[in-house]
Amino acid sequence: VAGAKLPGEFELIGRYFRPLAAGTPGALGLGDDVALVAERAGSELVVTADAVVAGVHFLREDPPDLVARKMLRVNLSDLAGKGAEPVGYLMTLALPADTTEPWLARFCQGLAADQAEFGIGLLGGDTTQTPGPATLSVTALGRLPAGSAPARSGARQGDAVWVSGTLGDGALGLRCLRDEFAGLDAAAAASLIDRYRLPRPRLALGIALRKSGLVHAAMDVSDGLVADLGHICEQSGCSAEVAMERLPIGAAARAALAIKPDAIEEVFAGGDDYELLFTAAASSAEAIQAIARETGVALTMIGRIGQGRSVVLRDAAGRVRPTERTGYKHF
Amino acid sequence: VAGAKLPGEFELIGRYFRPLAAGTPGALGLGDDVALVAERAGSELVVTADAVVAGVHFLREDPPDLVARKMLRVNLSDLAGKGAEPVGYLMTLALPADTTEPWLARFCQGLAADQAEFGIGLLGGDTTQTPGPATLSVTALGRLPAGSAPARSGARQGDAVWVSGTLGDGALGLRCLRDEFAGLDAAAAASLIDRYRLPRPRLALGIALRKSGLVHAAMDVSDGLVADLGHICEQSGCSAEVAMERLPIGAAARAALAIKPDAIEEVFAGGDDYELLFTAAASSAEAIQAIARETGVALTMIGRIGQGRSVVLRDAAGRVRPTERTGYKHF
Repeated sequence: VAGAKLPGEFELIGRYFRPLAAGTPGALGLGDDVALVAERAGSELVVTADAVVAGVHFLREDPPDLVARKMLRVNLSDLAGKGAEPVGYLMTLALPADTTEPWLARFCQGLAADQAEFGIGLLGGDTTQTPGPATLSVTALGRLPAGSAPARSGARQGDAVWVSGTLGDGALGLRCLRDEFAGLDAAAAASLIDRYRLPRPRLALGIALRKSGLVHAAMDVSDGLVADLGHICEQSGCSAEVAMERLPIGAAARAALAIKPDAIEEVFAGGDDYELLFTAAASSAEAIQAIARETGVALTMIGRIGQGRSVVLRDAAGRVRPTERTGYKHF
Repeated sequence: VAGAKLPGEFELIGRYFRPLAAGTPGALGLGDDVALVAERAGSELVVTADAVVAGVHFLREDPPDLVARKMLRVNLSDLAGKGAEPVGYLMTLALPADTTEPWLARFCQGLAADQAEFGIGLLGGDTTQTPGPATLSVTALGRLPAGSAPARSGARQGDAVWVSGTLGDGALGLRCLRDEFAGLDAAAAASLIDRYRLPRPRLALGIALRKSGLVHAAMDVSDGLVADLGHICEQSGCSAEVAMERLPIGAAARAALAIKPDAIEEVFAGGDDYELLFTAAASSAEAIQAIARETGVALTMIGRIGQGRSVVLRDAAGRVRPTERTGYKHF
């Protein structure tokens, strides 16, 4: 029955969560309150946590497998920003009383698919009921050699600013879901929506960049390019100038922008990109392009680090583009 | 203004959360998406996660500092069950729009107090808004020598069953908050309510027990004695018999039970105890009592591990006490 109540927590664990932990020895079969992670000499664990709420970060009617995968991938993208190898994750689920077992089954199918894709396993967590909307929290663990994580504070004057993949797709995809692009080719809309629902954490690229030793500062773009580049500038004590005509925009996004040119804001301030943003010496450009070829992810040099503290967007004619939006507001 | 909206996420971080991370070098001042935990050869990290929801696990009108401390202590109690040294924690907060800054300030004061008490620091997290009730999730990290964590599955036939402190106080305290013990001495009620609101994670005791090497199986009591002893029996493939007259009951709980004798259920099935439950060879009794003296926490031998799979409570006359409640139902 679609509206049937969920079974008890121990049944849920046995039926849905334990299989997700089967490949994670330290998860102890989820038969304990804790999980164990063997430590390795000379390594650092990278930990990150994010919460998503139904009606805020996703819609109640969204496909539950995609909700699960996005929840996981947003955290994996944080690990990618540091070039960490993913290790595992814990998850706490506060679920409304009307959550159905088919919903939870599809949710866990999504997790299983991404566990296989990214080579991670469930370590533990907690499931509880809520009178409010579904509220899902993930803590992801990754690993890298001690001292090798690129900081946000490492950008240097004269550095080139690089970004992976294309920008704006996710934010434009959300607007497609809101039917804001009447007349947009269905395949283009589907592609943008897919980018919104299913981020591509750039783990292999992040690891290759970290191993190269060429990166001075790095992070993933989740709040929008201007906001996140602003974080690097703030912590590195520098400014950045971005050439708007260099911003990597995919074919589907170009089709959407042809309908609403003002939506270009989504490209530099929309958020939900989950691409990598980093700086490196200008002289490293060729080596970085080689990494792009090796990993199969496009890398584009979009600007330059300078003095001061601001982030400036400049158009092809040399005019400064004013931007009010500095990314996603959490409050 | 009491009803004023919270400031933006970055202001919140700077004003309230960054000070909590000041003593945690790997937290990177919360200026990054991730935290770094240096790994140690020969050690294991112990990780555990729990979520609490306003209106389910605490009341909206509960003092926010106590909400914060209980949220943290419930996780620390899981670490205590393994004898882990606490390292740090991550926290995700989904807060309603009407959350006030004074509420958050007191919430963080509670965290600061417990960080000092237990020697831990904030590593990272996420704050977001929710249209529902406040939903708070913590992932706690602890550490112990690799291979030294007592499992739930280690109980052996003939083992003695031990429990720390006193049982039932927290569950009786909740019923005091619901005014179910008319006529109970105010000091007794206050003491029980305090135990409900402020669990005492038995970290020092857990560490001493783990170091002793005497413990065969261990966990903290959070779902109620019968339910949690049931978990040990299930995973160890054994049964347990508990002598009801041996259950450690404090003076305040005795006063409450004098008013409502049926409330004895809370002692063995109420939950919210956060005491340690463990098994050890009967011959270790003297050494275990020495640990109780060293750590200043009472330890009581309450029963025996046997064959089969059940948990049986037997009263002083030798009669089996039927129990339907096997602890807190999460769904």
